[in-house]
Amino acid sequence: MSEQPIIRRRVVKTGISDARANNAKTQSQYQPYKDAAWGFINHWYPALFSNELAEDQVEGIQICGVPIVLRRVNGKVFALKDQCLHRGVRLSEKPMCFTKSTISCWYHGFTFDLESGKLVTIVANPEDKLIGTTGITTYPVHEVNGMIFVFVREDDFPDEDVPPLAHDLPFRFPERSEEFPHPLWPASPSVLDDNAMPLGMHRTGYGNWRIACENGFDNAHILVHKDNTIVHAMEWVLPLGLLPTSDDCIAVVEDEGGPKGLVQWLFTDKWAPIMENKELDLKVEGLKGRYYRTSVVLPGVLMVENWPGEHMAQYEWYVPITDDTHEYWEIIVRVCDTPEEREKHQYRYDRVYKPLCLHGFNDCDLYAREAMQNFYYDGTGWDDEQLVATDISPITWRKMASRWNRGIAKPGRGVAGAVKHTSLIFKDTADGHRPGYKVRQIEED
Amino acid sequence: MSEQPIIRRRVVKTGISDARANNAKTQSQYQPYKDAAWGFINHWYPALFSNELAEDQVEGIQICGVPIVLRRVNGKVFALKDQCLHRGVRLSEKPMCFTKSTISCWYHGFTFDLESGKLVTIVANPEDKLIGTTGITTYPVHEVNGMIFVFVREDDFPDEDVPPLAHDLPFRFPERSEEFPHPLWPASPSVLDDNAMPLGMHRTGYGNWRIACENGFDNAHILVHKDNTIVHAMEWVLPLGLLPTSDDCIAVVEDEGGPKGLVQWLFTDKWAPIMENKELDLKVEGLKGRYYRTSVVLPGVLMVENWPGEHMAQYEWYVPITDDTHEYWEIIVRVCDTPEEREKHQYRYDRVYKPLCLHGFNDCDLYAREAMQNFYYDGTGWDDEQLVATDISPITWRKMASRWNRGIAKPGRGVAGAVKHTSLIFKDTADGHRPGYKVRQIEED
Amino acid sequence: MSEQPIIRRRVVKTGISDARANNAKTQSQYQPYKDAAWGFINHWYPALFSNELAEDQVEGIQICGVPIVLRRVNGKVFALKDQCLHRGVRLSEKPMCFTKSTISCWYHGFTFDLESGKLVTIVANPEDKLIGTTGITTYPVHEVNGMIFVFVREDDFPDEDVPPLAHDLPFRFPERSEEFPHPLWPASPSVLDDNAMPLGMHRTGYGNWRIACENGFDNAHILVHKDNTIVHAMEWVLPLGLLPTSDDCIAVVEDEGGPKGLVQWLFTDKWAPIMENKELDLKVEGLKGRYYRTSVVLPGVLMVENWPGEHMAQYEWYVPITDDTHEYWEIIVRVCDTPEEREKHQYRYDRVYKPLCLHGFNDCDLYAREAMQNFYYDGTGWDDEQLVATDISPITWRKMASRWNRGIAKPGRGVAGAVKHTSLIFKDTADGHRPGYKVRQIEED
Repeated sequence: MSEQPIIRRRVVKTGISDARANNAKTQSQYQPYKDAAWGFINHWYPALFSNELAEDQVEGIQICGVPIVLRRVNGKVFALKDQCLHRGVRLSEKPMCFTKSTISCWYHGFTFDLESGKLVTIVANPEDKLIGTTGITTYPVHEVNGMIFVFVREDDFPDEDVPPLAHDLPFRFPERSEEFPHPLWPASPSVLDDNAMPLGMHRTGYGNWRIACENGFDNAHILVHKDNTIVHAMEWVLPLGLLPTSDDCIAVVEDEGGPKGLVQWLFTDKWAPIMENKELDLKVEGLKGRYYRTSVVLPGVLMVENWPGEHMAQYEWYVPITDDTHEYWEIIVRVCDTPEEREKHQYRYDRVYKPLCLHGFNDCDLYAREAMQNFYYDGTGWDDEQLVATDISPITWRKMASRWNRGIAKPGRGVAGAVKHTSLIFKDTADGHRPGYKVRQIEED
Repeated sequence: MSEQPIIRRRVVKTGISDARANNAKTQSQYQPYKDAAWGFINHWYPALFSNELAEDQVEGIQICGVPIVLRRVNGKVFALKDQCLHRGVRLSEKPMCFTKSTISCWYHGFTFDLESGKLVTIVANPEDKLIGTTGITTYPVHEVNGMIFVFVREDDFPDEDVPPLAHDLPFRFPERSEEFPHPLWPASPSVLDDNAMPLGMHRTGYGNWRIACENGFDNAHILVHKDNTIVHAMEWVLPLGLLPTSDDCIAVVEDEGGPKGLVQWLFTDKWAPIMENKELDLKVEGLKGRYYRTSVVLPGVLMVENWPGEHMAQYEWYVPITDDTHEYWEIIVRVCDTPEEREKHQYRYDRVYKPLCLHGFNDCDLYAREAMQNFYYDGTGWDDEQLVATDISPITWRKMASRWNRGIAKPGRGVAGAVKHTSLIFKDTADGHRPGYKVRQIEED
Repeated sequence: MSEQPIIRRRVVKTGISDARANNAKTQSQYQPYKDAAWGFINHWYPALFSNELAEDQVEGIQICGVPIVLRRVNGKVFALKDQCLHRGVRLSEKPMCFTKSTISCWYHGFTFDLESGKLVTIVANPEDKLIGTTGITTYPVHEVNGMIFVFVREDDFPDEDVPPLAHDLPFRFPERSEEFPHPLWPASPSVLDDNAMPLGMHRTGYGNWRIACENGFDNAHILVHKDNTIVHAMEWVLPLGLLPTSDDCIAVVEDEGGPKGLVQWLFTDKWAPIMENKELDLKVEGLKGRYYRTSVVLPGVLMVENWPGEHMAQYEWYVPITDDTHEYWEIIVRVCDTPEEREKHQYRYDRVYKPLCLHGFNDCDLYAREAMQNFYYDGTGWDDEQLVATDISPITWRKMASRWNRGIAKPGRGVAGAVKHTSLIFKDTADGHRPGYKVRQIEED
């Protein structure tokens, strides 16, 4: 289907209306987004791949400035605040678990119930008055098809208000096929589908999560990919870019009880592929690409349907670690109903998609996002950027995210990255360690 | 004696009284301590081992944000402010001494008297009006038994008020044996004793000195040592921890004319070894450890009596370099009256105590302290920590130190670490150099 | 001529008058200089050597906090603000030029006219309303004798007010020989002379540009060079230093329509070579050095006449990158009228001047400047420095520069170094990259 000839479209002359421009009024509509340097809290985020957390293993990560420790017991994953309430060390730095239902702090033995987070005992102080009166925050966990998701919440966010994971994942198909029809590709698979097989990787990006996120569904950034090996290996011929042709080029989805986000009407006549730039003497002939459609939902999850191949979808997350680092997740999901299909998907992932797409192609996105960091980090960018018609995508996202996020994360306190220039960071960088996502556990002797 | 059976103690039920808890009133009593991020000034600190400063050698260090240059002439050590009053470079960065009684700045030749600090001449400007009218601060030096101590003072602290070194060193025995009796070990040696032989090392810790110091005499931190090689090599069986059983479990020493500090009544019935935690199904049987007693005196000097062996004491200092680095000193002192004893002590130190105790065992303390740094560095820790009965030790110390310190060091100005993010630090860390204690001298050609 | 015996001078007794001291009134006269942490803007600076920018090559640099991209087309060099007005990335990070007259942003295709900086098209958005209405700042370029100079200006500095390059370069000879006569050496060559051949290098210094600049013409800093190989290889015998003997020891040049700066009357009887310091038992006999004269003009250009050999002059610039890094330029210029002379100059430069002077000798200046950085960077130095008679040179410069600079650069915004502790810097230093001057271009695949 991806080899079909391109559909004819009307010639673009006027583009989108002035009403969609990024004027002062529009900007005031996304002030909450501008305030969300540390991310949106009270949302589901991917934490680890299942295979990164074996039975009884403990790992520490940080999301939205919240340190989180994960432990798997009898197959089940528990997540708690990774900061002992006593003197603030990370439990994950040197895992110590005396029972199946607890985790103890390696320093002074404060011991927490995995399920409730309550302080249930102190190793050498089992009758202290503090026991039973306090505890650390727990985070709901949902593990599915090889991925561990955590609901990162404020300390006082009530259990009963925790939404299902599906509300923070991309729109599902074929459920939404009527709402968002497309003749060019089969219904996209979801991470939540039975037998879904998400393959991918995550790594740290050195920039704010919002800047990273906006790149994902920005229809004008295609230029950074023009020299990518995958493009040429596939003999794709890409347009110069995609231009909106009408105000309803993006569908904003704000239904009760489901993911909040937007779907771009790519490969309909609401977006025109640009084939020529006379000023620059550029002309694309024999267009032959992959049809795809991008959508994004809160808290910042990209889905690229029909990409990088048929019957697949690529998901991306830009999980805030601090206000200037994020964990970049790239997943290719496919439903594989048989062992043979699973093996084939894995093989092709290892040989083609991982090296040429998740690296190769997406490496360009990673540096493009980091290239914006200096401009935005001191506030300059939000005020000085000069946006154009194609930027209707990030603008629509900023407004939507401002309306529907479940909370603006407060700046990290007492955690890595709260103070940027601690001697610990200089020690680590002098030793060749970049700031990262996972806790480096203490090596003894 | 260390193999004696454990003394029976009463069962702990209630622990210490509410009056010893860390409430708001208590906290207000240690506000000065909370203000002392850069250390306590007008105190004696170890600067270098004698063998780090050969005749005519010059070294630069920094204590409490004060840069200090040391030079040894005819065996005597002089210490001066390591910042030329002309344009602020460190004299130690490129030592230049034209006479036995002076040190000259390598940059423009400003020359200071080692004894008085006065500007006595300028190499190529010997009649300038400034000469004789100004100078740099000098620091009293006391060298004893292989250690060089410096009295780090404010610029206007008068010579006549400088106390003897003994006032800033641990309590001495047998002088205090009546006051602090203990049947379990022989009287502890002091660095000041005739024929005392302190062996040890110092290295930089990447955290605030207070957080480091509190770990040293914290009776609940024993857990971090449970897997240490020395413990298992010696076939020690440690309790889970030590718990205070009465309000007078710590003696605070505030006599006129002597060190100010506290002694913990360990291995009396004021502290109970905890042998069991039923909740966690932990039980220690056949307890067999080393009896020891910890005390701490201003400006932050730990003594562990009867450790790591009989007739020995371990001293530790956590000398503030900046507000987020300290120089961690570990000394094992023993009185050796004959060359044979000295040789034997050195041999055992090299083969056992240095690798297994000062490294091995104490390495765990070092990382435990650094693990608290993020929590405390932005102020979060002081407000959010939730302390328990065993924390009576740090609380008592904080209050005592608040009352008896001789001055709160001001934040460093114009020195390394005053501004954290200078390009010099990035240059150094890019080159693989961690921030440290000693000046790296300029290498030419 | 450099081997001539030294001229006899009167004995120095009183030095310069009190009126030249650095009191509060004097300090108030150079407040603008103290404000110029990010440099003086609206001045000419060296950007690159011609051979660093081949035909069609693109490079990015930063001066006074202004990111600048240079491209050479048909031999001509163009310079523009290296920050896309769309989303702030640096054009130079991944050069993309579709025509001879434009440069396009590699991210979203915003395309700028090299000559005017105007936004002329967007690759995939050729009819956007923004086109033709906005643009990026351009910087006048003057390339001469192998050096590319750029006029770094504020965005609204008018073209018609751009002065000629000569106004920001050292005084020329023999034009000024009558004004500044000197019998000891031939008229000094200029970078602007026909057949001038400037050879040299540039590298990043980790300190503020002002501190670096002041070292260049500071007559008391000669001490740092006493052990240099070039000094001993040449069998030079240097004085201990040079001391001013009268208030008119420095000529301040403030003519309309020319460079603003100062010339020091070195090797006249207004400066005395100091041969002896009795206090330190130092005595120089058989003085035999190179006669030279230093002058400095705005925006901070040193000229050392008759150095490092006859018929030569050494130029230095301390080009502000940020407020705590500068690009240190060292040039040795000689007029070479024939290919043989050029070859000889190059040969001697490679074998002698580069290793022994620009490195060797000047390496000492580089570390001396960096050694002052901690003292000055937090403001301490400007208030606490204690200056003496020889400091008449920097004081005169500070006042002159305060009066005649064309603008104080504002702190960088949205650029590298605006925020010091971004995760990008920690990533780079962890990878072993120091902060620098040139943009590291993206390497793909």
